[in-house]
Amino acid sequence: MAALIMQFEVEKKNASVNANVTVKQEDEQQRRSYPTSFREERDTFGPIQVPSNKLWGAQTQRSLQNFDIGGERERMPEPIVRAFGVLKKCAAKVNMEYGLDPKIGEAIMQAAQEVAEGKLNDHFPLVVWQTGSGTQSNMNANEVIANRAAEILGHKRGERFVHPNDHVNRSQSSNDTFPTVMHIAASTEITSRLIPSLKTLHRTLESKSFEFKDIVKIGRTHTQDATPLTLGQEFSGYATQVKYGIHRVTCTLSRLYQLAQGGTAVGTGLNTKKGFDVKIADAVAKETNLPFVTAENKFEALAAHDACVETSGSLNTIATSLMKIANDIRFLGSGPRCGLGELALPENEPGSSIMPGKVNPTQCEALTMVCAQVMGNHVVVTVGGSNGHFELNVFKPVIASALLHSIRLIADASASFEKNCVRGIEANRERISKLLHESLMLVTSLNPKIGYDNAAKVAKRAHKEGCTLKDAALRLGVLTAEEFDTLVVPEKMIGPSH
Amino acid sequence: MAALIMQFEVEKKNASVNANVTVKQEDEQQRRSYPTSFREERDTFGPIQVPSNKLWGAQTQRSLQNFDIGGERERMPEPIVRAFGVLKKCAAKVNMEYGLDPKIGEAIMQAAQEVAEGKLNDHFPLVVWQTGSGTQSNMNANEVIANRAAEILGHKRGERFVHPNDHVNRSQSSNDTFPTVMHIAASTEITSRLIPSLKTLHRTLESKSFEFKDIVKIGRTHTQDATPLTLGQEFSGYATQVKYGIHRVTCTLSRLYQLAQGGTAVGTGLNTKKGFDVKIADAVAKETNLPFVTAENKFEALAAHDACVETSGSLNTIATSLMKIANDIRFLGSGPRCGLGELALPENEPGSSIMPGKVNPTQCEALTMVCAQVMGNHVVVTVGGSNGHFELNVFKPVIASALLHSIRLIADASASFEKNCVRGIEANRERISKLLHESLMLVTSLNPKIGYDNAAKVAKRAHKEGCTLKDAALRLGVLTAEEFDTLVVPEKMIGPSH
Amino acid sequence: MAALIMQFEVEKKNASVNANVTVKQEDEQQRRSYPTSFREERDTFGPIQVPSNKLWGAQTQRSLQNFDIGGERERMPEPIVRAFGVLKKCAAKVNMEYGLDPKIGEAIMQAAQEVAEGKLNDHFPLVVWQTGSGTQSNMNANEVIANRAAEILGHKRGERFVHPNDHVNRSQSSNDTFPTVMHIAASTEITSRLIPSLKTLHRTLESKSFEFKDIVKIGRTHTQDATPLTLGQEFSGYATQVKYGIHRVTCTLSRLYQLAQGGTAVGTGLNTKKGFDVKIADAVAKETNLPFVTAENKFEALAAHDACVETSGSLNTIATSLMKIANDIRFLGSGPRCGLGELALPENEPGSSIMPGKVNPTQCEALTMVCAQVMGNHVVVTVGGSNGHFELNVFKPVIASALLHSIRLIADASASFEKNCVRGIEANRERISKLLHESLMLVTSLNPKIGYDNAAKVAKRAHKEGCTLKDAALRLGVLTAEEFDTLVVPEKMIGPSH
Amino acid sequence: MAALIMQFEVEKKNASVNANVTVKQEDEQQRRSYPTSFREERDTFGPIQVPSNKLWGAQTQRSLQNFDIGGERERMPEPIVRAFGVLKKCAAKVNMEYGLDPKIGEAIMQAAQEVAEGKLNDHFPLVVWQTGSGTQSNMNANEVIANRAAEILGHKRGERFVHPNDHVNRSQSSNDTFPTVMHIAASTEITSRLIPSLKTLHRTLESKSFEFKDIVKIGRTHTQDATPLTLGQEFSGYATQVKYGIHRVTCTLSRLYQLAQGGTAVGTGLNTKKGFDVKIADAVAKETNLPFVTAENKFEALAAHDACVETSGSLNTIATSLMKIANDIRFLGSGPRCGLGELALPENEPGSSIMPGKVNPTQCEALTMVCAQVMGNHVVVTVGGSNGHFELNVFKPVIASALLHSIRLIADASASFEKNCVRGIEANRERISKLLHESLMLVTSLNPKIGYDNAAKVAKRAHKEGCTLKDAALRLGVLTAEEFDTLVVPEKMIGPSH
Repeated sequence: MAALIMQFEVEKKNASVNANVTVKQEDEQQRRSYPTSFREERDTFGPIQVPSNKLWGAQTQRSLQNFDIGGERERMPEPIVRAFGVLKKCAAKVNMEYGLDPKIGEAIMQAAQEVAEGKLNDHFPLVVWQTGSGTQSNMNANEVIANRAAEILGHKRGERFVHPNDHVNRSQSSNDTFPTVMHIAASTEITSRLIPSLKTLHRTLESKSFEFKDIVKIGRTHTQDATPLTLGQEFSGYATQVKYGIHRVTCTLSRLYQLAQGGTAVGTGLNTKKGFDVKIADAVAKETNLPFVTAENKFEALAAHDACVETSGSLNTIATSLMKIANDIRFLGSGPRCGLGELALPENEPGSSIMPGKVNPTQCEALTMVCAQVMGNHVVVTVGGSNGHFELNVFKPVIASALLHSIRLIADASASFEKNCVRGIEANRERISKLLHESLMLVTSLNPKIGYDNAAKVAKRAHKEGCTLKDAALRLGVLTAEEFDTLVVPEKMIGPSH
Repeated sequence: MAALIMQFEVEKKNASVNANVTVKQEDEQQRRSYPTSFREERDTFGPIQVPSNKLWGAQTQRSLQNFDIGGERERMPEPIVRAFGVLKKCAAKVNMEYGLDPKIGEAIMQAAQEVAEGKLNDHFPLVVWQTGSGTQSNMNANEVIANRAAEILGHKRGERFVHPNDHVNRSQSSNDTFPTVMHIAASTEITSRLIPSLKTLHRTLESKSFEFKDIVKIGRTHTQDATPLTLGQEFSGYATQVKYGIHRVTCTLSRLYQLAQGGTAVGTGLNTKKGFDVKIADAVAKETNLPFVTAENKFEALAAHDACVETSGSLNTIATSLMKIANDIRFLGSGPRCGLGELALPENEPGSSIMPGKVNPTQCEALTMVCAQVMGNHVVVTVGGSNGHFELNVFKPVIASALLHSIRLIADASASFEKNCVRGIEANRERISKLLHESLMLVTSLNPKIGYDNAAKVAKRAHKEGCTLKDAALRLGVLTAEEFDTLVVPEKMIGPSH
Repeated sequence: MAALIMQFEVEKKNASVNANVTVKQEDEQQRRSYPTSFREERDTFGPIQVPSNKLWGAQTQRSLQNFDIGGERERMPEPIVRAFGVLKKCAAKVNMEYGLDPKIGEAIMQAAQEVAEGKLNDHFPLVVWQTGSGTQSNMNANEVIANRAAEILGHKRGERFVHPNDHVNRSQSSNDTFPTVMHIAASTEITSRLIPSLKTLHRTLESKSFEFKDIVKIGRTHTQDATPLTLGQEFSGYATQVKYGIHRVTCTLSRLYQLAQGGTAVGTGLNTKKGFDVKIADAVAKETNLPFVTAENKFEALAAHDACVETSGSLNTIATSLMKIANDIRFLGSGPRCGLGELALPENEPGSSIMPGKVNPTQCEALTMVCAQVMGNHVVVTVGGSNGHFELNVFKPVIASALLHSIRLIADASASFEKNCVRGIEANRERISKLLHESLMLVTSLNPKIGYDNAAKVAKRAHKEGCTLKDAALRLGVLTAEEFDTLVVPEKMIGPSH
Repeated sequence: MAALIMQFEVEKKNASVNANVTVKQEDEQQRRSYPTSFREERDTFGPIQVPSNKLWGAQTQRSLQNFDIGGERERMPEPIVRAFGVLKKCAAKVNMEYGLDPKIGEAIMQAAQEVAEGKLNDHFPLVVWQTGSGTQSNMNANEVIANRAAEILGHKRGERFVHPNDHVNRSQSSNDTFPTVMHIAASTEITSRLIPSLKTLHRTLESKSFEFKDIVKIGRTHTQDATPLTLGQEFSGYATQVKYGIHRVTCTLSRLYQLAQGGTAVGTGLNTKKGFDVKIADAVAKETNLPFVTAENKFEALAAHDACVETSGSLNTIATSLMKIANDIRFLGSGPRCGLGELALPENEPGSSIMPGKVNPTQCEALTMVCAQVMGNHVVVTVGGSNGHFELNVFKPVIASALLHSIRLIADASASFEKNCVRGIEANRERISKLLHESLMLVTSLNPKIGYDNAAKVAKRAHKEGCTLKDAALRLGVLTAEEFDTLVVPEKMIGPSH
């Protein structure tokens, strides 16, 4: 919608330089009806007025009017639009093998390529909250590509020289195109956006783990002081979580690479030709460089979106991992004086307008908010995925939207977290050392020498009197100072014994 | 972001008419850095370049750069921005009572009013995924209002004639302003958008219930044929669900009307004056015509967002109601030949590009997708609400975003559903009557006369032979035709006996 | 099932003292089929063998065999069984007004009273995972009460002197009894178990708030040091959360007090008499001392369980509150040496088998686990509540089970938390004071005197050099020692100024 | 608890035959304190009374008293108890390699074997709602095995001849044993219970798909009539969903097979010997016949339970699949007269006490309720999994409980659904054929011959006049009867053309 308004704005600007402010005050509804120039488009319901400068046709326009839900923020996600470009391009290519007029086919391919590149985003105004099969977005793609292809061939918009159904949508149904673009979009976003971000985060966590490998610190279990470990070991846990997260989402790709295309209306493939499904999956695979194949069972592929639920589940797991990591980092970085204070996080912005010098773990906060959103989106996908009936699941757009939302948010937030936080984390060695040596849990080392019961007495005395373990041990007379120093060596407590 | 781009577009247009398409192809990241003219703004972190044509300042700019998460779709919801306008206006008004220079105060009020009216939306580019206290959006509001107020007073942007902190944010902290705008925004959206939509839906369902009050139809339990009821009775259940939904969300308003303002950084009200909290709640109440009061406990109001979790819970309940209603309507309208076919739903668009005459329950589909989203958003709010620590919950923006998303979606989808579906529902009386009279469950009426066992025999015979109950009864010789006709009267089966 | 085994055990014991161990090794499935003595019961499906020592009849036995899901842990919750006792007693009472033979009616009332008191729990073996209307549990109640009433009247089990359907279930259907017992059970558990527990917890938190009212401590926002507040103020936030939680769940009771009874099969009340619904709600109200009324719309009451979803939503909110409180308490009590250490939590058990003296916040852990379960149960109730079709929601048992699970868990865990944790919390005044005075955020007090910029310099110098604010201020020469001491008084930072 | 009561019952029986009823009336709390004979056990907190006939010790008893939450239904799931048996047996075996006295080691192995076989279940009374590390259940296992091993060696309970910590828990910590038993229990339940059930369900669905392969029926999309497919094709979709479900859960096993054992308190392996972790994983693998290995990173294995979240995610996906399948089957089986009526489901029990002959899809209902529970449990696991801190996640018991609950429920409900429903499903061929031939969507076949527009006219005329397509086509004069019969052949519409 952004660019739509933009266009109007530009045109208006030419007419009147002062109109700018006024328009901005108008609400979306008004914006939608802003254009003053229209052409007629038609479908089986009859004629309808469409803004002249838009490529879409009658069915898109009808959807705009019938589904005034949520405003422009709710538009079908861009990766879906682009995937439609990819798919329609491949369909034209395969359809030419089956007899589509090459002139028309080539023009469709060119127009579809523009859609795939995001050049025609402004012509995809429909929101997620439409028909549950995504039919209207499929028709939006068909209409835009048909009009654009017609233009390429020197014809006018709305003339239907290239037909949205007979040419662009040939051998296809919304019921198989929409699940296909869901899989193309999700796979593309995962492989090109999410996994690279997670890999970068993993590498940085791993390098921090190496950087901190000699820093012995107090462990904490139940949020209480426990036996020591190195800060590097602690970070190795985070790195492992992210590594497994990459494995998890990768595991789900094999089912996401199955494309529904070729199932048409109910999964039988009525109105396609034998082999169409395999050819189009091949074409999409070539176009995207991803190993797409045709779904082995098209009935499942239309009627259920279990692959999306599964993938969303892997994102949900990644969200739990990232929530844990970000929580740890903010607590370890809490302070500067009254918290744990073991880590120093990068200062990216002023933290408070009242309190000078306050620095907040804002990247952790953004990331954990993203995690909460991903957990909720997973419920959206689950509820949507469980409510299919008979030959078609009609929660397709919301499943696509929530899944792509999660992918994008984790990808971006992981990147931001890596760049603006993890990369710059420094260990506060002094503080770490101080806490370590004050800890009562080092008493565990005394067990073999003086027994669990005496060790307990030492710890309790130290706790009660607020003194060091050594002082307590000496006061109790269970050890000499030398013995204590020989036994209580945190550096020896960070692994199994030989 | 939309208008931001728009601006650039306009400027560019003047330079070159052909640049238009190119820019559109660039991705958001590029768009963000598009402007060529900048001014310097500064905060305690030092100077930073800000686009000249934007009113925001240094902290907003820093947030834009540090939180490149999700793109422009993820901007802080407009109702939050507008609520900041309301709050800052009221704060200036009260601050003048406590000594703020009236000239500055009045200019702030005027600038804030523009924000409240949505006139300056384009100057609020920050996304939800920022610091968890919403500090950056609070500063965005402070900076925009300060610069705009300065302009009103004849000063330049960036000069700090009106100071974002000392003047606009006076006696405030992000920690109390953000929860305050969350409550203002949610309350406003609920009362002005959601409840009116639900009331309209309720009225229409109720009028349908009246319209259909004499249409006796088969009941269905376990999706199986059961004893009859009227179609009006069936719709009265839907109407009651929506009515109670209105009650439910209304019930939560009393806690949403409590404002955190006056708690400042940790709930103590440090840096405010006694009475500030009460005065500002009064001012907001007057400004919005809603009965806001100051929160009785500011510590709870900053550290927890239970009121938002509660409200989201009421939306979740409404979503379960609407899911049920929409599911029923689509199943009752299923067919036209091979479904239940009791209702005829309005035809709003062509249903299929392959199958002529196919009409789909698309409004039900959009609504049920919205319900799935609302259920997921509720989990977002719950997870966010449960993860506060100490004096501050730092999931504020995601809680606000998910809650406002749910409110808006239910409001809009209910309105769309009412207007484009429920209002036009017609009963297929012929089909309803046919099904009713074929039903075996009417046999229940025979129990008193011939006993449960004989009645069962009649039903089973009819089922087995595929004949009518009457035929079965006559064949079994348990009743005469006259007796059967006297006893089996569905119209007498729709209520308790006297 | 427990008592069932017990019975067999007892009988076996008489035969052989050594058999005990063997039986215990057998799994549930075997246990179920253990009895050697049977009688024949029958329903419309024909005869079936039932253990002689059990009061249940044919339909219960069939369900046992057809729904072997989950084992005995999954039995219908006891409050449902007891509520059936209440309801069937009231139904008999009202049915006598409408002509039920008083001898039979009185016997039913007596038998039902035994069910209400939990005396016959062992005769209710059915699991939650049965028919979605709860029909089988309704029949279980009918069968047990009929057989028991018959025994009271001197007749034998299985003879059907008192008939489960014609007498015990008279004027009722599973479709209205089950939602009725759901509401009776939930209301009873909430008022007699949950609210008292929450009230006790609230009182204790409030008394702690009072006890700690003079202890000034560092505040923490974003988990970072912030301006001070009192520990009492901090606890007042917790107390308020719990108080509002009580309000929240209480708010939902008005809709839970509506009873479906009288709607029978589809909500029309077929086979009841006029007035039956009102009379039975009155009877239940008298029996339970709770203000039950008849549901204003029986169609809604059978087809939807929005009231349960709403109530579950209030429990979900309470769970978010308790999660926050328990998290705070465990972090504030973290240590003893390397955490925040501001609170000392009661030591209830040894914390570690390795580390002497380790005390863990186990009550916080149990409570937060309960909160996680309640959040999940809320999704169960939501999914179940949204999936009703036509005249009947058939997720009744799982909704009842999840809702009652949540009520019980919050009630018990709150009580345990209060008794074994909150009540015994002590403030570590020394530690609190130490942290408070080390904090850099006290610098905020200097703003009015030396300005924000100089205050910032003081804070940053202190942070950099690891010294006190006072030292930093003196070194920078911005204040005298006396001035500093006069200005930096945490006790004056815990409220608004006059 | 069941067997506990049983024991008391048996003893009481000997004293008094009439006491039986009285005890049953007492509530759980009383039951817990029932035993009259006690012995003293002790831990570092001092002595405590334990029922004489119980094998548990002091820490178990303390937990019983400190965590009175939820009653006996909430006991730690049996698979966890059994897995403790497996683990402790293996630990003893490996510990003997590292020097544990073989006499004691062998006795521990024998006692642990009894635990593994479920023979000592009654000695594991603790509930899920305890310390979040599961320490108390680990100690319960240690105490029971120590006492039982001591008895085997001729010593008395409570004497500590075999020490729960020094011998049974040697080289272990609750922090590594509990996550280990979580993985053992879940893996065992999945491989021995869940996957076999799903495989059986898959086979039966597949065989139905084959059985129904020639039955051409109307397809339904958007719940509206669509083009035909075979009933076999429809069932092939269900079979595929279940097959993929098996793949999905299997995919997660590789991470579930990683065992935390050897990490001890914080993941470092302090107090174990080098190699202990590998040896114990080997031993468990041999004992269980499952390919367990030692976790590559013990820090991750203690501090996070991402593997459980992931596995729960796969169950959540399976739940969405089963929800879809069960919903379809109940709708396709709806009727008998007023629904879709294409399938006849097995009649397992009487459906209604009012309506003779009513048969309900009760297995579908039980299964879909289970699916709702699994979706909720997944949120429990997610919330628990996301809330770990530092070196330990302390939501272990609730994660284990919810995960095992889901596994068990899906396993049992799938088995019940297969056995009591799917296996007996029959196609109602007459009804299917009738609906198919009445459908207007067969008009799609006419498109190539008479064009989309004329086909639409035929469909609309037939719809309007309520006649057949053929009649409409003839009335419109667009085709001859012979042409129509040649073109409209549903059997040719169930696949792509050549």
